[in-house]
Amino acid sequence: MIITVTLNTALDVTYRVGSLRPHTTHRVLDTAERPGGKGLNVARVLAALGHRAVVTGFAGGPAGDELRRLLAATGPAGLITDALVPTAGTTRRTVGVVDGATGDTTMFNEPGPVVSPAEWAALTGVYRELLAAPDTTAVALCGSLPPGLPVGAYAELVREARAAGVFVLLDTGGEPLRRGLAARPDLIKPNADELAGLTGFTEPARAAGDARRRGARAVAASLGADGMLAVTDEGSWRALPPDRLRGNPTGAGDSAVAGLLSGLAEGLSWPERLGRAVALSAATVLAPAAGEFDRTAYRDALARVEVVPAAG
Amino acid sequence: MIITVTLNTALDVTYRVGSLRPHTTHRVLDTAERPGGKGLNVARVLAALGHRAVVTGFAGGPAGDELRRLLAATGPAGLITDALVPTAGTTRRTVGVVDGATGDTTMFNEPGPVVSPAEWAALTGVYRELLAAPDTTAVALCGSLPPGLPVGAYAELVREARAAGVFVLLDTGGEPLRRGLAARPDLIKPNADELAGLTGFTEPARAAGDARRRGARAVAASLGADGMLAVTDEGSWRALPPDRLRGNPTGAGDSAVAGLLSGLAEGLSWPERLGRAVALSAATVLAPAAGEFDRTAYRDALARVEVVPAAG
Repeated sequence: MIITVTLNTALDVTYRVGSLRPHTTHRVLDTAERPGGKGLNVARVLAALGHRAVVTGFAGGPAGDELRRLLAATGPAGLITDALVPTAGTTRRTVGVVDGATGDTTMFNEPGPVVSPAEWAALTGVYRELLAAPDTTAVALCGSLPPGLPVGAYAELVREARAAGVFVLLDTGGEPLRRGLAARPDLIKPNADELAGLTGFTEPARAAGDARRRGARAVAASLGADGMLAVTDEGSWRALPPDRLRGNPTGAGDSAVAGLLSGLAEGLSWPERLGRAVALSAATVLAPAAGEFDRTAYRDALARVEVVPAAG
Repeated sequence: MIITVTLNTALDVTYRVGSLRPHTTHRVLDTAERPGGKGLNVARVLAALGHRAVVTGFAGGPAGDELRRLLAATGPAGLITDALVPTAGTTRRTVGVVDGATGDTTMFNEPGPVVSPAEWAALTGVYRELLAAPDTTAVALCGSLPPGLPVGAYAELVREARAAGVFVLLDTGGEPLRRGLAARPDLIKPNADELAGLTGFTEPARAAGDARRRGARAVAASLGADGMLAVTDEGSWRALPPDRLRGNPTGAGDSAVAGLLSGLAEGLSWPERLGRAVALSAATVLAPAAGEFDRTAYRDALARVEVVPAAG
């Protein structure tokens, strides 16, 4: 079982309109809603790969209820367990307006609810119980922090995982990433911008080395169209996607996290995990709906992805 | 007591953003929600004027629950009664994105739920009971029809009101207005576009005369900055707003309906009702939040609005 933690969950809403024209009124042609936030995306991909996932984080208000209702209907039955902690505040919505003429998306992200100290304490309690479960193999800590939480929240969750002997992946940016590193996570999965923001280096291999010196045991940096670079104590590799991809990159990084952790749980080697992560990312970019992945594209990409040793 | 009927209710959501840039991601700086749909706006203004209002129409799903929760907290305690009929489908949301730099609003209106024949039958049952209440003085039939309802739905509701001897105002457009007229409502409140669409005449007095020949006993046409023209069997008047107004016209027409019906319930003359309607509209345009009205501006406008006899 893999735990995913999403402290800033969202109900992702998509509106399709004919054509976006600022300062006019649009008839929404159709709407779609799904449970959102990076850890929920990770759990959905894990379940699609046949892995059990348990999601925790916060959910509250009408949007939180709707998120939980949709989550219960997500993935093969029984593979995703809802261990979300209730909040007094209302879970944020993200509204993505898709321009039917161009396919471009305009996003409006509501602010998250303010999390109280009591709610944070309830979450850490649930988290500790999940870490203690005998079949827990890994935990993914995903996304931004909602208002009200200490900036060191991820550092605390990393320490708990290490104390429980559970592999911990941290996927966040900014100050929460910087603080989280000090607690020595097993793996971080920054994108190029997050890695440069953390280290000041724009060259990925150099930045990854610096991030390891700051506390990450391993770094898997997602480099967009350039695939992924892993710098670990077993070696360094780069995985290259089979093609230049056109599509919607939303959720591609979350699919990569699911690829890395499912591969870990299956005992795959680092190059195999990296290949799976990049193939899942590619299949997510190619899927018609943001954050889904196309199974045929995944199998095809997995056969063609190239993983080569890299300077680390 | 005044009945307002809103067949296509909405949960109105407002997002304030720094500046709207298509195809980018926006942080929503703050959000506001309120019960929406024209009849709900009318009821809110009636309650603010001290009148009892009972709202009916449809509400369903999480957005419908939220709308009812907010409605219960609206206005002076006890003045608004919720007689909404549940639907299996989910009440639509309208999302208005306010550009903080320019003040302009971009609207995204979800489609309404499809109303079933059984839900429509439930509504007409509730409506008949409300019409039969001894203290019912008037009914306002407001806004568009949701999918699933017969285009003659308003004609049926007009006939019921007339059979019950209750004054009925119809505020809609297009084919539902055309059909509704045949059932001979006491008053219609079209805007200039709706009146021209109905009659083919762009000159308001001529169009109003034609609308009366088609079945409306009286016409109060809202002419935007030019105020309002009433053509009735007691005479014709034009009410002129005191100033050229700058602001948000959302809800100004609904405030006018509340002005006309509250004046009727208080036994005011036609010119007095018209003056109140125009003053409330002006105070709505000037209010900082769309669809609210500014009490000071209302008193000021009421003292300065000019009502003059018109050619009818």
